Amino acid sequence: MIDVPTLVEQAREGRPRAVARLITLVENAAPELREVMAALAPYTGQAYTVGLTGSPGVGKSTSTSALVSAYRRLGKRVGVLAVDPSSPFSGGALLGDRVRMQEHATDPEVFIRSMATRGHLGGLSWSAPQALRVLDAAGCDVILVETVGVGQSEVEVAAQADTTVVLLAPGMGDGIQAAKAGILEIGDVFVVNKADRDGADATARELNHMLGLGEAREAGEWRPPIVKTVAARGEGVDEVVEALEKHRAWLAETGELATRRRRRAADEVEAIALAALRARIGDLHGDRHLSALAERVAAGDLDPYGAADELISSLTNP
Amino acid sequence: MIDVPTLVEQAREGRPRAVARLITLVENAAPELREVMAALAPYTGQAYTVGLTGSPGVGKSTSTSALVSAYRRLGKRVGVLAVDPSSPFSGGALLGDRVRMQEHATDPEVFIRSMATRGHLGGLSWSAPQALRVLDAAGCDVILVETVGVGQSEVEVAAQADTTVVLLAPGMGDGIQAAKAGILEIGDVFVVNKADRDGADATARELNHMLGLGEAREAGEWRPPIVKTVAARGEGVDEVVEALEKHRAWLAETGELATRRRRRAADEVEAIALAALRARIGDLHGDRHLSALAERVAAGDLDPYGAADELISSLTNP
Repeated sequence: MIDVPTLVEQAREGRPRAVARLITLVENAAPELREVMAALAPYTGQAYTVGLTGSPGVGKSTSTSALVSAYRRLGKRVGVLAVDPSSPFSGGALLGDRVRMQEHATDPEVFIRSMATRGHLGGLSWSAPQALRVLDAAGCDVILVETVGVGQSEVEVAAQADTTVVLLAPGMGDGIQAAKAGILEIGDVFVVNKADRDGADATARELNHMLGLGEAREAGEWRPPIVKTVAARGEGVDEVVEALEKHRAWLAETGELATRRRRRAADEVEAIALAALRARIGDLHGDRHLSALAERVAAGDLDPYGAADELISSLTNP
Repeated sequence: MIDVPTLVEQAREGRPRAVARLITLVENAAPELREVMAALAPYTGQAYTVGLTGSPGVGKSTSTSALVSAYRRLGKRVGVLAVDPSSPFSGGALLGDRVRMQEHATDPEVFIRSMATRGHLGGLSWSAPQALRVLDAAGCDVILVETVGVGQSEVEVAAQADTTVVLLAPGMGDGIQAAKAGILEIGDVFVVNKADRDGADATARELNHMLGLGEAREAGEWRPPIVKTVAARGEGVDEVVEALEKHRAWLAETGELATRRRRRAADEVEAIALAALRARIGDLHGDRHLSALAERVAAGDLDPYGAADELISSLTNP
């Protein structure tokens, strides 16, 4: 039996084990989540969330770690949610266990969590926002959400932050790679990391061109800055924080922050509702109705739309 | 106005333009799809579908192209569905336009299509199976579904084939990378490509160990083979086809083929039903109900589960 009120109380005090246990409940889609989220709701909405994404190898973890250091120097409590399908720690990591995050492992004001991207009821769209709520209610001022910029679900998660940072690295037409992957359009701030390597200026120029940053914009429109960093040595990281704070101010002034958070909440509610409906599809007929329909579809006797109609009608008129 | 019966008729005759147009309807989530799928249903279930997945750089496109050649030598009609977030052609490619597929571009018995992975109503779980139906009804004997082995949705698509091939390449602990990405468990056949490079044997050994292939298995259980290839020179590709055909025979003998196809149909029906329910969530109250709930959730006045309950109840009791 999980004592939810005590866990929530401890998490709100910022106790790492309680925070970790609540996120584990999210990962396990535990029945207690409903009670947890109801208890947390009044304490959410304070954290500034930043999504970081980019192709493998651009230095996302290093950059995230450098940003954690920068925000710690400003005295902020920082949460990190690493959604990394290739993370060896995904699926059940304790807080603070990622290799590149080791320097922050003993800092009680830093919460780090890796999340698995597979095998999830409703997937990332369901789990990531709820993990964010836990870190938010735990008093994090800033939450960094790191995802690999490959994969539909992963990019969507990064795009749902208050501010989305797209990372690139010089060489191999990386700007073009990012464009192909469709991640350019979600960037509020661009970072060219590993800027001590050849080609960093070319990458920044190429990016500048692809984003049409030289063109005139309407008054009040956000013009994504491009910041060059060498995250491994901490170079340029304060400039990234500066760009983030500028974007955050712009979000607040224009009302875009409220709009984005409403949209994020709507997506979250929809994901939970759809997961519940999916569970109901399974429960309603002990999964037999769906099996029988699937059998007819597999045999070519029924098309999938007709089968979906029957499924919905049995769901809404049980 | 789209003349669905004529399009379907032409697609069944294997006319590339008609096949391409039907897949475009899938990509656009066109209202005609319901009619299209009803017309196609009786002609589906013939194709043998093979999913190919692996990390970027293991040679998926080259391997797919080599497999196309091998199946063409056997006189088979072949379909290729490339779900590649980094493909420059994703989102609206004509058949036969991928660079590495150029050698097959003029072959009337080969259908090649790239699909976008983003911006989709219901995502890949909704669109990929319907694109497969089109290729199936167009008389393809074999359909190769190529996806990058990164990202939740992408790996799920590969895992839904009759047979799933996981590709690796030597070096950099690639076996371990694949294990991290969670794609080892979905492989029915493993291919170590670029086997002319140093470390190919080590990769195969490592894989053999990780899969526990040395251990005893129950009678009738499938033991995934590991095939070494140099796909760029066509080496080992006939052995891959042989492994695929063995797995196909095993699927048929054990009844696993019917089980997998029923499961795939169930997932497909569920994805269509959920997309329809999602559309209904949007329609029911002109999206206002969801907006109002989202506003309360964003403000912390309501938790997301409570909001989801309200949403579902207004959906099922309008």
